[in-house]
Amino acid sequence: MAKLRHPLTDLPRAFAEVDLDRLGRLGAPEIIYGSGKTVPQIQAIALRMLSQKQPVLVTRVDAKKGKQLRRIFPQGQYHPAARTLSLKPKKYRPVRQARSFRVAICAAGTSDHPVAEESYVTLEFLGHRPTRFYDIGVAGLHRTLRHLPSLRSHDALIVVAGMEAALPSVLGGLIGLPLVAVPTSVGYGAHLQGITAFLGMLNSCAPGITVVNIDNGFGAAYAIHRLAIASHARHPSSS
Amino acid sequence: MAKLRHPLTDLPRAFAEVDLDRLGRLGAPEIIYGSGKTVPQIQAIALRMLSQKQPVLVTRVDAKKGKQLRRIFPQGQYHPAARTLSLKPKKYRPVRQARSFRVAICAAGTSDHPVAEESYVTLEFLGHRPTRFYDIGVAGLHRTLRHLPSLRSHDALIVVAGMEAALPSVLGGLIGLPLVAVPTSVGYGAHLQGITAFLGMLNSCAPGITVVNIDNGFGAAYAIHRLAIASHARHPSSS
Amino acid sequence: MAKLRHPLTDLPRAFAEVDLDRLGRLGAPEIIYGSGKTVPQIQAIALRMLSQKQPVLVTRVDAKKGKQLRRIFPQGQYHPAARTLSLKPKKYRPVRQARSFRVAICAAGTSDHPVAEESYVTLEFLGHRPTRFYDIGVAGLHRTLRHLPSLRSHDALIVVAGMEAALPSVLGGLIGLPLVAVPTSVGYGAHLQGITAFLGMLNSCAPGITVVNIDNGFGAAYAIHRLAIASHARHPSSS
Amino acid sequence: MAKLRHPLTDLPRAFAEVDLDRLGRLGAPEIIYGSGKTVPQIQAIALRMLSQKQPVLVTRVDAKKGKQLRRIFPQGQYHPAARTLSLKPKKYRPVRQARSFRVAICAAGTSDHPVAEESYVTLEFLGHRPTRFYDIGVAGLHRTLRHLPSLRSHDALIVVAGMEAALPSVLGGLIGLPLVAVPTSVGYGAHLQGITAFLGMLNSCAPGITVVNIDNGFGAAYAIHRLAIASHARHPSSS
Amino acid sequence: MAKLRHPLTDLPRAFAEVDLDRLGRLGAPEIIYGSGKTVPQIQAIALRMLSQKQPVLVTRVDAKKGKQLRRIFPQGQYHPAARTLSLKPKKYRPVRQARSFRVAICAAGTSDHPVAEESYVTLEFLGHRPTRFYDIGVAGLHRTLRHLPSLRSHDALIVVAGMEAALPSVLGGLIGLPLVAVPTSVGYGAHLQGITAFLGMLNSCAPGITVVNIDNGFGAAYAIHRLAIASHARHPSSS
Amino acid sequence: MAKLRHPLTDLPRAFAEVDLDRLGRLGAPEIIYGSGKTVPQIQAIALRMLSQKQPVLVTRVDAKKGKQLRRIFPQGQYHPAARTLSLKPKKYRPVRQARSFRVAICAAGTSDHPVAEESYVTLEFLGHRPTRFYDIGVAGLHRTLRHLPSLRSHDALIVVAGMEAALPSVLGGLIGLPLVAVPTSVGYGAHLQGITAFLGMLNSCAPGITVVNIDNGFGAAYAIHRLAIASHARHPSSS
Amino acid sequence: MAKLRHPLTDLPRAFAEVDLDRLGRLGAPEIIYGSGKTVPQIQAIALRMLSQKQPVLVTRVDAKKGKQLRRIFPQGQYHPAARTLSLKPKKYRPVRQARSFRVAICAAGTSDHPVAEESYVTLEFLGHRPTRFYDIGVAGLHRTLRHLPSLRSHDALIVVAGMEAALPSVLGGLIGLPLVAVPTSVGYGAHLQGITAFLGMLNSCAPGITVVNIDNGFGAAYAIHRLAIASHARHPSSS
Amino acid sequence: MAKLRHPLTDLPRAFAEVDLDRLGRLGAPEIIYGSGKTVPQIQAIALRMLSQKQPVLVTRVDAKKGKQLRRIFPQGQYHPAARTLSLKPKKYRPVRQARSFRVAICAAGTSDHPVAEESYVTLEFLGHRPTRFYDIGVAGLHRTLRHLPSLRSHDALIVVAGMEAALPSVLGGLIGLPLVAVPTSVGYGAHLQGITAFLGMLNSCAPGITVVNIDNGFGAAYAIHRLAIASHARHPSSS
Repeated sequence: MAKLRHPLTDLPRAFAEVDLDRLGRLGAPEIIYGSGKTVPQIQAIALRMLSQKQPVLVTRVDAKKGKQLRRIFPQGQYHPAARTLSLKPKKYRPVRQARSFRVAICAAGTSDHPVAEESYVTLEFLGHRPTRFYDIGVAGLHRTLRHLPSLRSHDALIVVAGMEAALPSVLGGLIGLPLVAVPTSVGYGAHLQGITAFLGMLNSCAPGITVVNIDNGFGAAYAIHRLAIASHARHPSSS
Repeated sequence: MAKLRHPLTDLPRAFAEVDLDRLGRLGAPEIIYGSGKTVPQIQAIALRMLSQKQPVLVTRVDAKKGKQLRRIFPQGQYHPAARTLSLKPKKYRPVRQARSFRVAICAAGTSDHPVAEESYVTLEFLGHRPTRFYDIGVAGLHRTLRHLPSLRSHDALIVVAGMEAALPSVLGGLIGLPLVAVPTSVGYGAHLQGITAFLGMLNSCAPGITVVNIDNGFGAAYAIHRLAIASHARHPSSS
Repeated sequence: MAKLRHPLTDLPRAFAEVDLDRLGRLGAPEIIYGSGKTVPQIQAIALRMLSQKQPVLVTRVDAKKGKQLRRIFPQGQYHPAARTLSLKPKKYRPVRQARSFRVAICAAGTSDHPVAEESYVTLEFLGHRPTRFYDIGVAGLHRTLRHLPSLRSHDALIVVAGMEAALPSVLGGLIGLPLVAVPTSVGYGAHLQGITAFLGMLNSCAPGITVVNIDNGFGAAYAIHRLAIASHARHPSSS
Repeated sequence: MAKLRHPLTDLPRAFAEVDLDRLGRLGAPEIIYGSGKTVPQIQAIALRMLSQKQPVLVTRVDAKKGKQLRRIFPQGQYHPAARTLSLKPKKYRPVRQARSFRVAICAAGTSDHPVAEESYVTLEFLGHRPTRFYDIGVAGLHRTLRHLPSLRSHDALIVVAGMEAALPSVLGGLIGLPLVAVPTSVGYGAHLQGITAFLGMLNSCAPGITVVNIDNGFGAAYAIHRLAIASHARHPSSS
Repeated sequence: MAKLRHPLTDLPRAFAEVDLDRLGRLGAPEIIYGSGKTVPQIQAIALRMLSQKQPVLVTRVDAKKGKQLRRIFPQGQYHPAARTLSLKPKKYRPVRQARSFRVAICAAGTSDHPVAEESYVTLEFLGHRPTRFYDIGVAGLHRTLRHLPSLRSHDALIVVAGMEAALPSVLGGLIGLPLVAVPTSVGYGAHLQGITAFLGMLNSCAPGITVVNIDNGFGAAYAIHRLAIASHARHPSSS
Repeated sequence: MAKLRHPLTDLPRAFAEVDLDRLGRLGAPEIIYGSGKTVPQIQAIALRMLSQKQPVLVTRVDAKKGKQLRRIFPQGQYHPAARTLSLKPKKYRPVRQARSFRVAICAAGTSDHPVAEESYVTLEFLGHRPTRFYDIGVAGLHRTLRHLPSLRSHDALIVVAGMEAALPSVLGGLIGLPLVAVPTSVGYGAHLQGITAFLGMLNSCAPGITVVNIDNGFGAAYAIHRLAIASHARHPSSS
Repeated sequence: MAKLRHPLTDLPRAFAEVDLDRLGRLGAPEIIYGSGKTVPQIQAIALRMLSQKQPVLVTRVDAKKGKQLRRIFPQGQYHPAARTLSLKPKKYRPVRQARSFRVAICAAGTSDHPVAEESYVTLEFLGHRPTRFYDIGVAGLHRTLRHLPSLRSHDALIVVAGMEAALPSVLGGLIGLPLVAVPTSVGYGAHLQGITAFLGMLNSCAPGITVVNIDNGFGAAYAIHRLAIASHARHPSSS
Repeated sequence: MAKLRHPLTDLPRAFAEVDLDRLGRLGAPEIIYGSGKTVPQIQAIALRMLSQKQPVLVTRVDAKKGKQLRRIFPQGQYHPAARTLSLKPKKYRPVRQARSFRVAICAAGTSDHPVAEESYVTLEFLGHRPTRFYDIGVAGLHRTLRHLPSLRSHDALIVVAGMEAALPSVLGGLIGLPLVAVPTSVGYGAHLQGITAFLGMLNSCAPGITVVNIDNGFGAAYAIHRLAIASHARHPSSS
């Protein structure tokens, strides 16, 4: 970033230094957090990345911004449930840097869907194969348990839950796979915008569960990507 | 309580006005919260109640106080796990004021036992028939589920759990009985002395679960007693 | 729930797995939490349940959604104060699974009414006989006490209160019936969206009071339903 | 306070600058908060005040310090329940600066006594006439209400309560006198060391109640003293 | 309040049981908290009180509601800064039940004015004589100190402050009068909607300060009214 | 401030007592916090200050108010990114009271810009020479480290960061200059409106970092101004 | 667990139902949380597991308990820094169920060592190959960066940090491997027993970092074990 | 730090990597935080630093550890009030890297002394000239104001205060110098171990005040040292 002497004129150029080196360093391009950024800001960053032959994923894009960005990038894919926009450079051929993971995305209730969809789209963007297991919360335990054999055949689990967040404990106690829990801000009263779900996950009685920030479906997907990189490094030919 | 004019001399007489009327009014005698009371204070209250032919239960009596009180009341029963002392007046014949409830006391982990035992002893004191179901936490769900038929044959459940407190949600979703959840202060880190368990229970996805204060095994037992009174009022002959 | 391979097309079918088994398992049908669900989502769930001859109750339905749903289901009943919508399948004849409880719903102040009404409608939906006792907060204790004889003639109490929530303590100390306290998010300043009321209820000096989540009028009603099931199981002929 | 250049030698002289002017300015001498001060520190401050013919009150003096201070000041009065030490200069004749108030000190439960006693002793020290009304918590409302006529004959009320702190609301709704509420740190679980009681008092439905810090029996007494000064200023001959 | 059997039709009659007895019991009529009540609700309560020859004060009336209520009650006084509406019955002659207090209302900053104005109007409504001392926060201490002689000539102080709330400590340390502190929700960042100001006031180093809820200008005024009642009871002829 | 007897008529004059003496006392004029003030209020204060030949800076001026104020003061400068308005009296010649500091303003991410810009404009207003170093957050550490030599050539650092706020620790451990950290309210989930960033800064492992309130770009700039005054006092000729 | 009818006599048998099935289900035996368990309780569980040919790891064993357990199990290994005890059945030959992972355990400061050591010992117990990188906190960034090449040659990172917890952000931004962050309860003042560290980690600007509970070195190690299981399932021959 | 393969034997060497480079990089040696370190650990670090001709300061050394360390280092200076130990290498001649600042250390009350003394000793260690102004809290404002002329003659202020922490606001509003505020954990009830003081300081109405962590007297002193370095860099000959 250049040092700026003229307060307001050159802001457009400087407002966001894209980390173009990240693809090489971390094995995935920088993913744009769309909330709080204007459409021109997102456009500028996306163009910068595309010009370097990097694919683009923007998260937290609401319906209105999504429409505007689709007008700018007609080739882009907007996913309304996940609130994401993805773009690919022309003639883009991904170089595999990670094993392709089969990931089961489990969600406890209806209102956890947007967060789960953010995980879904991010995983696909990063080259993995996610599957949805929705509405399997423990209030009707039979709905949860009937999926066990299928869940066990994956490489890793993402478990999205609000309220008291009992689902990760139940699944984590039955299945030995990597499990990333995502608390959601769904609930009311003493739910405290997701803090209850989040504290519950951290105190899970099932061992070795890890947690990401509230509503952070992207973060959970990316954590799985890191696992896949570790697997790939050791077994480059097997994926 | 009389008004006192002489600051320190007459405190012993005044320190605790026993609510002797409570047995008639609420269907159970006043139960003494032993924590923060001295042995002479507990002794004075107990004698007052015994002289009125009322049975006595003192909760939160640590081992040292328990030993001292056993010396004063050799006929008393001290339960070290529950930390309670119970005393009965001579020739005491309880008048039944409530149906005798069969109550399943479920506890998730080892460290929830003292709280569960407080419920156990209080229920017995109030004329009910509790049964223990301990170490049935959801981290090993098979241990939980194998008790379902037996649990369903009771009148009500008390579910004691610390950590993320998933057990009440699982049981409450599978069994339609009254369920009082007791959060415990067991855990570490972000468990916050039981507040995590307690928030989790309040946000349970299983409908109609109610909650009492952290570690309040007594309160859960007493809540069940209130149910039994309601049942009894309508069906005096059936219990 | 089937596993889905096509991200966005089949969401409508999958968005909410209705727990149709709940009526048999818990003695009451699943009740739909309307907040955060769209009108088409609610419509789909309701149709699913009606097709299985199950009655439908939707809570947290605001005025606008209520109007839209009434257009779809002209036979439905929308209660604006309780913000609920109820629907019955044609030729519906409830099978009694619980004793019909007489429940006194007590509310401390004007702003507690919506929560109390949610309890009222839910209880009626589940086959019970609620009665309202509103504006009987302790700031004018004579208003509270004059209802004591009437309150004592019920099977259970629901006590809805915001601010410092003293009403459950006063009533719980005078009446031995089951008492479920519902904190409300009414108040200002250090009321903390109901957390003050809620902490107060948990620390009530009256023994055996239980608490549900903030503003959870539905939960309190359902907790009473669980009691009624327990009574019924033992006395099937008496209700 | 002089500026000090030699780090550790002259600390004893400087450790606490006594506000000797306070008696004239505020109508009461500085009262020493004993907690966290050593016996020599308390001794030095007390001697300084006595030499200026000012009476001395030290609060939060535990039993051990109390014994040591009684050896130094044999004429002093140590109140074990209130944990205070009071000393008077020889030939001390108080100049009346405030009306002598009759103050009813109400306490809800046994464990609120030490805080109430701190109010009692402080009021006597400042020239007022306190009366104790202890163990009148609302869990047995009849015990509370039987004192109403007597309470109404006072000039002001101090109400000390822990747990959910319903007593100030009940009394404040029935009696129009000045009422200072003191939350206590008594309770367990979600009582949060008095914060629950304290939030409850601030949100009381009874109008015009004021609150002091948790366990601050001294502060409540002093607040009453301020009222008495205001009364006195207007009616110097009437007290 | 009558018991209601018909859910929604008779709500208008029952929605708020006016405490008409309060004037005799507490020395002031019930004052209506306007927030969360509809214009017809406020109208009904006001008419009820006027019909009993009681004066009416409604607090927290926003500009829009104020305009509507002025159309209904053209004789009413709406104070936009204080957000209050006051109404007097025809031929109303107040019976004095309290000494008329001279009260200094001190406010630290511009944004504390609405809360201070609520105190001002409430005090006038209750028959007292308030004076404003605004913008005297301690950031410019000379502005604070120049009012000391004038402040000392009052009967009591109300001190309204947001941010760190240092003003009550400074004034309470210099003036021995009754001081009720009102924290305001003004500030940003770690101000936490007034909790910082409120905690600061409770921990004031000036002795005997009392505190009311955040933004509760009405409560502070009413607390002063209680003092005036206490003064009056002893000195009925002096006011 | 004069004492006011007529509630609402003379508020305009009294609403804000400008601290005109501050320039002499603290070495900088009072700076107006625009949030919560109306355009006429800001106009009145600004005119008052200009009439005393004092320059004016108003912070937290949103776009709409900024436009209105520009109509009133066409000579004023509105900075949309910093949300500030600055005005200078005619023929204004600043008297230097502080050394002119070269200040590096570092910002971790795009959403920290508005806060950083508030620091930038305030520093320029107070006569200093700020330079921007934006988007240098530690997620791409090479972007941070490449500026080290340039950062070291300044007199002081302001470091603006949200999320986990690691940037001040990294810079404070590498550079010995004065460092004022500004937490921002940017983030989501468990970010708690900036409290996470703010707690992180206070617990920085780099020694001697100081912190201002959340989003308080103005405060950080003013803290630097205090340093410059201290330097100036000792070295008046060197700046 | 058998249902118990005799309150206190048969507790020893029942106090803890060992989950012997866990080794087969999750790929690791149950690991005993020693805190809050007595030496006889730990002994009983350990014997039960050894009799089933399962290896035993007990965490949170303080020095005193460690000494007592070593007397009972002379073949056991007690690690004072990690506060763990490990035991192996005779002729134990582990069946490999997971790839052996090379794990870099990074710790920011001296006081993070005990937590890091708990990770170390747990990883070794589960068949992995941990390496220590201690005292590499970002306050001296050169100490952190000099280990980058070595860190990158591992399969996964555990990063233990207290205070503001900047280390996981710095490492996670530079290295694409799986990274589990462990907040520690080290710090003072506004560190809030590790909550600050823990919130910081959840809000890390480095993507895909996951977090376990405060001080939960065991949990981080177990999370890595889950990754290894996932790798192994796909590549059984490669480890 | 070397990578370690043998768990427990080589810990002594590795337990703390001293940042010997810090003196050159930041202009002050690493200062040892003594709390949580054993006497042998402190000894080892101190010897390492002395061998490099660096002076040593250890903070948070309690009386017992202080005595033990004095036996090891008889030439060391232990300050019981500040709880610090300082050691100098033989023939140590400090190279001046910062201007010597005159710093006024202001403390509000007796219990703030230990924190203030930590600042005092740290400043002397770093080559500055601190002066104490103790017991000047605003409860007796005359005590505060009488020191104004003297305070103004310094280069910077450190203001240590607990309770509501009004002192920094009063001084910061009257004096334009750099002011670092240190909240202390002194107080009770709703003081929350210093969080109240700390929030108050952050929300000070005096502009440009900065804050360090609770009880962090060392941090405040070090912040002043950073200012002195900045001054020195520009004016090397003037100190």
